[in-house]
Amino acid sequence: MSTPKITVLFYSTYGTNHEIARTAADAARAAGAEVRLVRARETAPEEVVNGQEPWKAQVEKMADIPVATPEDMIWADGFFVSTPTRYGVPASQLRAFIDTLGPAWQAGKLANKTFTATASAGNANGGVEMTLQSLYTSAMHWGAILVPPGYTDGVKFEDGGNPYGYSAKAGAFDETGRRSVAHQARRLVEFTTRLVSAPTRELEPAE
Amino acid sequence: MSTPKITVLFYSTYGTNHEIARTAADAARAAGAEVRLVRARETAPEEVVNGQEPWKAQVEKMADIPVATPEDMIWADGFFVSTPTRYGVPASQLRAFIDTLGPAWQAGKLANKTFTATASAGNANGGVEMTLQSLYTSAMHWGAILVPPGYTDGVKFEDGGNPYGYSAKAGAFDETGRRSVAHQARRLVEFTTRLVSAPTRELEPAE
Amino acid sequence: MSTPKITVLFYSTYGTNHEIARTAADAARAAGAEVRLVRARETAPEEVVNGQEPWKAQVEKMADIPVATPEDMIWADGFFVSTPTRYGVPASQLRAFIDTLGPAWQAGKLANKTFTATASAGNANGGVEMTLQSLYTSAMHWGAILVPPGYTDGVKFEDGGNPYGYSAKAGAFDETGRRSVAHQARRLVEFTTRLVSAPTRELEPAE
Amino acid sequence: MSTPKITVLFYSTYGTNHEIARTAADAARAAGAEVRLVRARETAPEEVVNGQEPWKAQVEKMADIPVATPEDMIWADGFFVSTPTRYGVPASQLRAFIDTLGPAWQAGKLANKTFTATASAGNANGGVEMTLQSLYTSAMHWGAILVPPGYTDGVKFEDGGNPYGYSAKAGAFDETGRRSVAHQARRLVEFTTRLVSAPTRELEPAE
Repeated sequence: MSTPKITVLFYSTYGTNHEIARTAADAARAAGAEVRLVRARETAPEEVVNGQEPWKAQVEKMADIPVATPEDMIWADGFFVSTPTRYGVPASQLRAFIDTLGPAWQAGKLANKTFTATASAGNANGGVEMTLQSLYTSAMHWGAILVPPGYTDGVKFEDGGNPYGYSAKAGAFDETGRRSVAHQARRLVEFTTRLVSAPTRELEPAE
Repeated sequence: MSTPKITVLFYSTYGTNHEIARTAADAARAAGAEVRLVRARETAPEEVVNGQEPWKAQVEKMADIPVATPEDMIWADGFFVSTPTRYGVPASQLRAFIDTLGPAWQAGKLANKTFTATASAGNANGGVEMTLQSLYTSAMHWGAILVPPGYTDGVKFEDGGNPYGYSAKAGAFDETGRRSVAHQARRLVEFTTRLVSAPTRELEPAE
Repeated sequence: MSTPKITVLFYSTYGTNHEIARTAADAARAAGAEVRLVRARETAPEEVVNGQEPWKAQVEKMADIPVATPEDMIWADGFFVSTPTRYGVPASQLRAFIDTLGPAWQAGKLANKTFTATASAGNANGGVEMTLQSLYTSAMHWGAILVPPGYTDGVKFEDGGNPYGYSAKAGAFDETGRRSVAHQARRLVEFTTRLVSAPTRELEPAE
Repeated sequence: MSTPKITVLFYSTYGTNHEIARTAADAARAAGAEVRLVRARETAPEEVVNGQEPWKAQVEKMADIPVATPEDMIWADGFFVSTPTRYGVPASQLRAFIDTLGPAWQAGKLANKTFTATASAGNANGGVEMTLQSLYTSAMHWGAILVPPGYTDGVKFEDGGNPYGYSAKAGAFDETGRRSVAHQARRLVEFTTRLVSAPTRELEPAE
């Protein structure tokens, strides 16, 4: 069986999605994947970030995590993406990175890769479903193969039961969350492995 | 390589989705799948259907196509679903069938299967994107692996360019549409084949 | 000020949305509206309903609530709609009723009315956001004026914080939920009152 | 009747949404509104913009249009928002601006305002419905009153029929589009006028 390459991409303001992403990366590695953990570049003005102590502290905490580049997306066989919610949509920092993927997308280099997503919000029902669906929508444009968790493990009946992906209340990523994220990451690796291991047969163009 | 089992499920009032589904079934068979073509049971009162000549004619035209049962969903490795739009949501006839899948879902018998969708509407932008997304949303609850077409074939730049699935103006399913549906069906078969052919490795439950 | 006419439309299998709808109807009346409380007709076969004691009991409990007709939609100045989630989409019983509104819609008799929605699901994050958005999507097709609650009252920071509308865990509609639904209903009445009370000025057709 | 204040907010890379926004602003003024036409600040690096001649030319063309500030959102009674699609989501430049609205939102200064939206994409069905829904989703978080066009004017049967808002193929905003945008803007003004003109009655907090 081939080793699948997974890029775990996240943005985090105060740390919740950083923790989720680390958990996902660890679980994906443990499941046999080669993993790149990368973060979306901060786009807020430096004075804004530095004006908020917890935000500034989080940026420092992530200093050693590479900033995502289009090459990290081209390299991967599959993606695990995590983002805070901003009014039902991923944080604009993540969107700003996604908006740089035009050339890779146009060259077909984002197609046929697996994709799963997680999110956080200030309120339990504060837009997490919509944020996950928004990420899946973008991935559909790339020609991705989506691997949301559904209710494929018992942990989904303990973690709030978001079938589109694990969702955390900001600052409240807990042990149940860790198990849920690990399940979602392992499932991504499992299906990505199957896809990259299967005997390839080229799709013929539409006649 | 294993032969993937594909259920093509549709509902059609005046014929557009019937034609799409037939095209998908033919393309899936040609790509090597074992195919069941089934339709959602009509739920509108008989007098309503019979009061509209073209509706009645379509029902008669589909008389030999089996009515979908939960067993058709349990049997399949993957799904190709086609529906008319009703105010941005699939027709209630299709939803009525989906609502009978509770026992199969609870037993985990809908999980880990591939899923792709197509739709029609009276207007080109009349809710087709939302209808497709609504179908994908339901499939996510089942733990499906989604295989939307994105822009993975040149035909997607000719058919209106709906990356979530082919969408037709009602009554205007044409040659370009046929090529687009065939591409989408072949792609579904390709990825389903890879998933069912790969050496299986059981997912461990979340610790 | 004119008295706004509000139709509270719901479907309920085991009672949660029945309770929500009653609470909404009471609050709307208390806020000065004329209210019709109506339910979507049960479409499941009688033997299925009767085979599940709690479902059968609920049907009997709602026997005195009128079954919704298109006329209830034409009559109203605004709508409060409540539904259980079925895989991220409203119950097909509600959709079956909505699908009968074609003639009213085509005659423009659903346009320019206010609309707000609530939902329930088995899991806290089990598709409630998507179900509400699905309802709003349909209402947009009618030309409705949408009045989701957002975070316009402190109760929204206590009730799970779903900005699209109150959402309950099935069977767990509680006192906080009652306050949230009452707020959402009062807000609907408030804006509907403003719309129907304002001096009318006909919109000119697009030149 | 009071004069409603409308902020027309847009982002444009190559000009389509600039033209839409100008058309909307003109129609809103003609319908009696006080209008601010503002654009989301460009966030792409200057060298990237300058490296693409048509992008650079568009930035120069918009030089005299003020860059949007939170105060433009607080000031308004209603919003007309227009954006290009980026993989089914608004352009990150627009999202970056929206992400600066936290303090205004937390102070309740975005609530109870009307909102309508338009979009463009490279393909007719290339994510425009999803992009509009994404904007409405965010507006719901603010407690906005949504005023999508539905099919409230005959032009909606000529312009592609997107009930969520006018959508253009990039670079193909035409005369039909102009009539559709003008209708959508007039309708926004009409309902905003009614809301701001009606005798106010304070909403009581949820008991």
